[in-house]
Amino acid sequence: MRQKAVASGVKFRPHVKTHKTAEIARMQHGGALGPITVSTLAEAEFFADAGFLDITYAVPIPPEKIDRAAALARKIDALNLLIDSEPALRALEEHGGVFDVFLKVDCGYHRAGVDPNAPQSVRLALAIAHSPSIHFQGLLTHAGHSYNARSVDEIRRVAAEETSALTRFRAKLAKEGLGEILRSVGSTPTASVVDRFEDVDEVRPGNYIFYDAFQATIGSCTRADCAVSVLTTVVGSYPERRQAIVDAGALALSKDLGPDHIDPKFGYGLVCDLNLRPLPMRLVALSQEHGKLEAAAPPPVGTQLRIVPNHSCLTAAMYDVYHVVEHGNVVEQWRPVRGW
Amino acid sequence: MRQKAVASGVKFRPHVKTHKTAEIARMQHGGALGPITVSTLAEAEFFADAGFLDITYAVPIPPEKIDRAAALARKIDALNLLIDSEPALRALEEHGGVFDVFLKVDCGYHRAGVDPNAPQSVRLALAIAHSPSIHFQGLLTHAGHSYNARSVDEIRRVAAEETSALTRFRAKLAKEGLGEILRSVGSTPTASVVDRFEDVDEVRPGNYIFYDAFQATIGSCTRADCAVSVLTTVVGSYPERRQAIVDAGALALSKDLGPDHIDPKFGYGLVCDLNLRPLPMRLVALSQEHGKLEAAAPPPVGTQLRIVPNHSCLTAAMYDVYHVVEHGNVVEQWRPVRGW
Repeated sequence: MRQKAVASGVKFRPHVKTHKTAEIARMQHGGALGPITVSTLAEAEFFADAGFLDITYAVPIPPEKIDRAAALARKIDALNLLIDSEPALRALEEHGGVFDVFLKVDCGYHRAGVDPNAPQSVRLALAIAHSPSIHFQGLLTHAGHSYNARSVDEIRRVAAEETSALTRFRAKLAKEGLGEILRSVGSTPTASVVDRFEDVDEVRPGNYIFYDAFQATIGSCTRADCAVSVLTTVVGSYPERRQAIVDAGALALSKDLGPDHIDPKFGYGLVCDLNLRPLPMRLVALSQEHGKLEAAAPPPVGTQLRIVPNHSCLTAAMYDVYHVVEHGNVVEQWRPVRGW
Repeated sequence: MRQKAVASGVKFRPHVKTHKTAEIARMQHGGALGPITVSTLAEAEFFADAGFLDITYAVPIPPEKIDRAAALARKIDALNLLIDSEPALRALEEHGGVFDVFLKVDCGYHRAGVDPNAPQSVRLALAIAHSPSIHFQGLLTHAGHSYNARSVDEIRRVAAEETSALTRFRAKLAKEGLGEILRSVGSTPTASVVDRFEDVDEVRPGNYIFYDAFQATIGSCTRADCAVSVLTTVVGSYPERRQAIVDAGALALSKDLGPDHIDPKFGYGLVCDLNLRPLPMRLVALSQEHGKLEAAAPPPVGTQLRIVPNHSCLTAAMYDVYHVVEHGNVVEQWRPVRGW
């Protein structure tokens, strides 16, 4: 991903919320302390302590966290904040500091962000750009609707929307006198399927570092690309009802339903053997510490399995430590940041 | 719940997985260090360190954790293990120690447990009872199918199945010469709706300590009984699409769908004001750190809300600390155990 960004001549600012570790953030930059994207202020503070000095906090900032963000911003080179409303702009102005800010734009996902086609979005962009409290960085979007795709072709269409929404909006702002501003995009599906990043200045994919069963199903990656799994043990086996119980439940995996828009019976993760070969079993239900498998031949008690998670970001966040495996041996332990 | 158990003359062994704190476990016993139920060995070790000396580990034990369980068992009065298969019995026997063991029975939930109507279940119970490696404690079941109920009447029917399954199975074992053995039941819905515990020797509810939006919907409790909530802030407001974004996402709430068997559009938690009065808003989608609200009149940026979780056990486990609120002030902080 980094090489593709370099070859495309765009800034690479990977999201680190998927793994939340300093070790992997450095790997994303080939060993360097490059620009990163975070999803919580706790992550921003943790990575700043680890030496990352150029950070984008890519969730619209809650007004009550502005003081804390300002304190962090004073310690590092750049802490870019996200806003998408006049009240958020006023809250920053009332603080009295000067903030690096991106305007969040909705490119079709309809989560956060301003409508790039609405006249009031132009007015807000100009108000931000001209505010004495703001160093305006540019436009930022996240094509989360790429996760609804069912094929690589569909993902490519979303990727085109993602960049064109920002490019068209920027052209409108240029007519209003706003000079060159950055266009920042980021979603692992769209970043994965394009051969080259075009019509964009910065990319922020995150999940690609592990991928997961969801991404493999929609076509962002292959199953072999999935780099994180949960080791689990069969603790109950019930051949008469073609079921087994494993000791990985909702707290070990998260209750993310994965690619249920493609396969409603996909289950709560991809069940594999210890060599990560998929097995003909479905993880059909999770309670807190139990996972229920359905299989024509359920494995006996004591069998160890590996579950490739549906959503590696959510699963990885359930653990206090990563066990880094090389040739079957645990060679390192990495500790993620937690909380908010 | 404790008073009902005492009045019914049954042993009270509450599950502590819902909160995972020593403070609340003591509250469950009116300040004493009474018998408890846990869902992980990490919980067992944590509560043993906190002085709880009579613990049931209510998930079938994975064979590779027997050594660790044996080490803990030596330090406390009782560590009851659960098994439901011959391979698990053999694994305990091969260890060489002597273990306190319950036989897990399936009373209709079809997760773990032996079929109480199957002849081989009688044979397994006798093999366990006669094993020199085992102090046989009795029969344990969990009526998890009470969570599928849509009304108090349905929960009452499951409660009757839960106790009768154990009582009938115990009668069969008595004919085979097995003397008095305990019948242990536990599920918050069934324990909540009965006026008195009958035909049972021990009860193990857990979720009742907080309850949640799910339990209030199926009829285990009222909304006013819900004792845990997540404070969140509106960080984006989009009246034109009748939506808002809060800074509580999948990591703050868990992706549990709650009572979707009763209301498929229930959403990811009950949205309330700061005084826990429900608001006419639905939490329709969660990503890692964003929650999407739908509301006819979405609240403005900066509004604080409290979300009563769908499943308090899963939501509480996402936090490193409880903020204990009295009259609007945080008066204590309690730290739960994590991991496995």
